[in-house]
Amino acid sequence: MKQNEPHPDRGTVSASKERLRLWLRLLKASRTVEAKLRENLRTEFDTTLPRFDVMAALARHENGLKMSQLSGVLRVSNGNITGIVDRLTEDGLMVRVPVPGDRRATLVRLTKRGQEEFERQAAAHETWVDFILSDFSADEAAELAARLDQMEEGVSE
Amino acid sequence: MKQNEPHPDRGTVSASKERLRLWLRLLKASRTVEAKLRENLRTEFDTTLPRFDVMAALARHENGLKMSQLSGVLRVSNGNITGIVDRLTEDGLMVRVPVPGDRRATLVRLTKRGQEEFERQAAAHETWVDFILSDFSADEAAELAARLDQMEEGVSE
Repeated sequence: MKQNEPHPDRGTVSASKERLRLWLRLLKASRTVEAKLRENLRTEFDTTLPRFDVMAALARHENGLKMSQLSGVLRVSNGNITGIVDRLTEDGLMVRVPVPGDRRATLVRLTKRGQEEFERQAAAHETWVDFILSDFSADEAAELAARLDQMEEGVSE
Repeated sequence: MKQNEPHPDRGTVSASKERLRLWLRLLKASRTVEAKLRENLRTEFDTTLPRFDVMAALARHENGLKMSQLSGVLRVSNGNITGIVDRLTEDGLMVRVPVPGDRRATLVRLTKRGQEEFERQAAAHETWVDFILSDFSADEAAELAARLDQMEEGVSE
């Protein structure tokens, strides 16, 4: 159902209260899960969620990304991307490489070691999420993901 | 189902991928909804989500809260609660009142005008959420809220 079509029970008091309750639960659940993942990244890999997100973005772009592209693909706007890139470079997980034909631009990409490290972290991350969301069967998870997608598209329109 | 009971399809690759996908959608959806609510609060009421959260906490505690209690009940830890309280006080929406028998402590509480303003904002906020989540029927919303609650309790344990 599209956002601009009237919903049969929209506007009734109880539906509106249930949706408000759902929103507050959704927000609380996503914050709790995020906090748990941050904690696991810190204790298991001595890393942070922004570092993990930067590595995930670069893992999807083997040929590297310009800094501006990196900001664009990250799901969280992060004022400190430069600092994160500096740290990952110092740790030997990323490199800055010149762009042929553009002397002012540099690409950043994962090193081989960075790729391997990210693969380990991503596998652990998936296991943690699998455990946290284990109440949801594969089918339920797929269905709910699709509903959330739909809802979110309505908001973004 | 409790976290510590094995789930029939936990650990299978497809279930794990679906749950990861669900988590990414959940995070994205909650960020999109939050951004929309922030935008609406700004354009409709010239206010912010942290200000709204502070007023919501005080609206639930008519007799007022100490600053330390206010930090405790807010769902987001906010380093700048003092700044928000200052601003709401200047705007005549909140007052600081002395605590009988404790000269060093003050309570903060909403003024009558603050209560009325918050009621208007809360009513609008509920309408926005009702619209955004209108794909979910009252029953679905209640069911999903309960599942998220359950999941979140598992994480917090």
